[in-house]
Amino acid sequence: MGRAEPLARNEAGIATAVASLKQLFEDRLQTGRSIREQHGHTTTWLENQPPDAVAFPETTEEVAEIVRICAAHKVPVIAFGVGSSLEGHVNAPAGGISVDFSRMNRILAVHPEDLDVVVQPGVTREDLNVHLRDKGLFFPIDPGANASLGGMAATRASGTNAVRYGTMKDNILALEAVMPDGTIIRTAQRAKKTSAGYDLTRLLVGSEGTLGLITEITLRLQGIPEAISAARCSFPSLDAACQAAMMTIQYGIPVARMELMDRLAVRAVNLHSKLDLHEEPLLLLEFHGSDAGVAEQAESFGAISEDVGGSGFEWTTSTEERNRLWKARHDFYWASLELRPGSTAVATDACVPISRLAECVTRAAAKAEELGILSPVVGHVGDGNFHMSPLIDRDDPVQLEKAEAYIDWLANLAISMDGTCTGEHGVGQGKKSFLTTEIGAALPYMKAIKAALDPDNIMNPGKVLPD
Amino acid sequence: MGRAEPLARNEAGIATAVASLKQLFEDRLQTGRSIREQHGHTTTWLENQPPDAVAFPETTEEVAEIVRICAAHKVPVIAFGVGSSLEGHVNAPAGGISVDFSRMNRILAVHPEDLDVVVQPGVTREDLNVHLRDKGLFFPIDPGANASLGGMAATRASGTNAVRYGTMKDNILALEAVMPDGTIIRTAQRAKKTSAGYDLTRLLVGSEGTLGLITEITLRLQGIPEAISAARCSFPSLDAACQAAMMTIQYGIPVARMELMDRLAVRAVNLHSKLDLHEEPLLLLEFHGSDAGVAEQAESFGAISEDVGGSGFEWTTSTEERNRLWKARHDFYWASLELRPGSTAVATDACVPISRLAECVTRAAAKAEELGILSPVVGHVGDGNFHMSPLIDRDDPVQLEKAEAYIDWLANLAISMDGTCTGEHGVGQGKKSFLTTEIGAALPYMKAIKAALDPDNIMNPGKVLPD
Repeated sequence: MGRAEPLARNEAGIATAVASLKQLFEDRLQTGRSIREQHGHTTTWLENQPPDAVAFPETTEEVAEIVRICAAHKVPVIAFGVGSSLEGHVNAPAGGISVDFSRMNRILAVHPEDLDVVVQPGVTREDLNVHLRDKGLFFPIDPGANASLGGMAATRASGTNAVRYGTMKDNILALEAVMPDGTIIRTAQRAKKTSAGYDLTRLLVGSEGTLGLITEITLRLQGIPEAISAARCSFPSLDAACQAAMMTIQYGIPVARMELMDRLAVRAVNLHSKLDLHEEPLLLLEFHGSDAGVAEQAESFGAISEDVGGSGFEWTTSTEERNRLWKARHDFYWASLELRPGSTAVATDACVPISRLAECVTRAAAKAEELGILSPVVGHVGDGNFHMSPLIDRDDPVQLEKAEAYIDWLANLAISMDGTCTGEHGVGQGKKSFLTTEIGAALPYMKAIKAALDPDNIMNPGKVLPD
Repeated sequence: MGRAEPLARNEAGIATAVASLKQLFEDRLQTGRSIREQHGHTTTWLENQPPDAVAFPETTEEVAEIVRICAAHKVPVIAFGVGSSLEGHVNAPAGGISVDFSRMNRILAVHPEDLDVVVQPGVTREDLNVHLRDKGLFFPIDPGANASLGGMAATRASGTNAVRYGTMKDNILALEAVMPDGTIIRTAQRAKKTSAGYDLTRLLVGSEGTLGLITEITLRLQGIPEAISAARCSFPSLDAACQAAMMTIQYGIPVARMELMDRLAVRAVNLHSKLDLHEEPLLLLEFHGSDAGVAEQAESFGAISEDVGGSGFEWTTSTEERNRLWKARHDFYWASLELRPGSTAVATDACVPISRLAECVTRAAAKAEELGILSPVVGHVGDGNFHMSPLIDRDDPVQLEKAEAYIDWLANLAISMDGTCTGEHGVGQGKKSFLTTEIGAALPYMKAIKAALDPDNIMNPGKVLPD
């Protein structure tokens, strides 16, 4: 369990801060073991390191008050959205206060004419999209889980349609944040673009709560497209599937989603969902645009696929048929677990230049087989990002060790291909050690920024930056 | 001339650094007055503050050597691309060494399959696009001037097609930079997305050379679209033109460019270019896509325009006709100067939420008239960004004072409308004083970052951050 080592605790400070906060927050400060454990890491294989207390603020001013108290006593502060992060981001290796944003879940202002919305960090992406639907608008970033928008901002999340709409860094106009000294700042106003000073918005996005707590987010929105089409095609090899994906991007087809599943992933959904897909690499696509546009785009993809040996090409604009075509992808997570009943899927998140993708996925699948690890693949292939999902029994130390070795090997493979060990999951505790290889010369400057803004290292200590 | 105040000079340090650099760079270190003045501010109305010497490095290692020497003697280092920036960014208010990147103008690698390119900072955007043309690729950001890509990155530039392709912050995958201590770093590898640590890429983009010198840029590219259409339409009022622009965006029409010209701007080009456009607010648009797509998009815009009272709607896909339709915009700069022969156009760069644009432009035009300043308007209206261009005689102190008062008024108006004083020109010296109003609470944290990375304040001192 090397990825989640405990850190030294400031027992006296923690006791004082918890007592002060209890007075202020009363039953909105919880210290029961079960709730504390729910606020440590609960996903994947990393150890659970619960905080000492969980606070439920309702306003930015209350968040600032928590930070000021923790700053005064040098006590860790850890932001918590819904806890769906995968790399131990919410763990409390030195103890401290978890700040649960679930009560800061108001949509503060929708500006349809400006295509933006101002939300509190506890709003989830599904709640936001339900709220926006009757205005003809939507927020496109979809990491799979119904994550909180604050958490998605803090981890620089993306997901299936980043290929068209970008990641969280591309879809945030401005933030309000509580800085490590308890000061409330705004990083920008609401204009679509600005060149007014250092980009604190992008510095906080992806900083995983180590530089400040995000208390308000101004997000860019999109109009719900007039039409959506979906397409699906099988390929004789991963290489052919990746070729089709590359050509689709290069031809400028504005694909909204483009997901890859490997043979094993297809087999898993065939078994789980009683489908009869060819057990070959599969691409699933979605297009957004006008009626004529989405038809043209799907057909252009069909022509590309045919050129590289694709088969079983189908496309549709009907909602029901779209759901049928995409069922394989939607059912993947549960289907994959059934490949090995009782197993846990370990998260990996390699992202490489798309020209290297076929080779990277092929080698990753071969290595898993060599180690005897069952590991289906899904990928956001337009971005060169894919997730091997090694299925292991967490209680078996031999398997844990193998999985850890595999994750290390894969991270280093991606880095050696000019890619990253973490395309969209963030660093947390799990990926810290790889940053030295990936961007080592830049780390002292990241550490200098951290030290300048948070000299007592109270904001989510033990995350992002390796020692 | 309050915008370009001189700062205290470290005479001894400068003399020592210049002597050391002369030994190393020989005739690639220039100290003649004319060349030094060319490397101070030469655009718009701000005073020229020349550096003490101009160095012409050819490699990243040479840039690092310059910074190490300047760091050792606490001497200012000012990056210089082509000098087209508008807010005094290249001035040397405390003297020091201008680092001219014109000899670092190589395109290091094109990766067509990944849609990216690695360039040195001295490559200009036009040179890059000439190089890419026969590969079917282009780099979309177009600020008007044939700026260097390093300068565009450093100022977070954008321009006419940011509405579709974003700004420099959205189109850079990774940077190599020389930090203030002379260390060479890379901010990221070449994957399309990453969540590996703090976003130093975006921190350096827009930092105007105050945190480090950009020595290599990995840029995202686009495929040259299969088809391009252009459209033009006149409107009875600024409000109607802005309504049409807003609706075009809201309906999800993926417009590539959408430029606004006001009555005065149209009159200027009618006079200069012998056109016979209605002297009414005008929108000019460009669409990128498939043959069918760009036709559909232009026609959709036509329908929207008709709904809000537009007239004289024309569209085309022929290159020659496109140039004819857009001639008014291309000729604008020179045409505007002829409204008042001998005048200088002062740069302004307000950017507001698009819902406030009509009101902001209308009030800005009325205020100019009230002050007796001739000031045509062009705007990147899809982003809510517009440039009033007060035409003044720089040698007339009364006019200078009026222009300065107008610029202040306009910056504050944009800020009061939840916008920014600088949408794409950057801060430099000219816009520093407005940041306090715009993002005052965030400034101490920007200053803390600056102090942490550049404790001796040698990197482009006197820029971006107000005292």
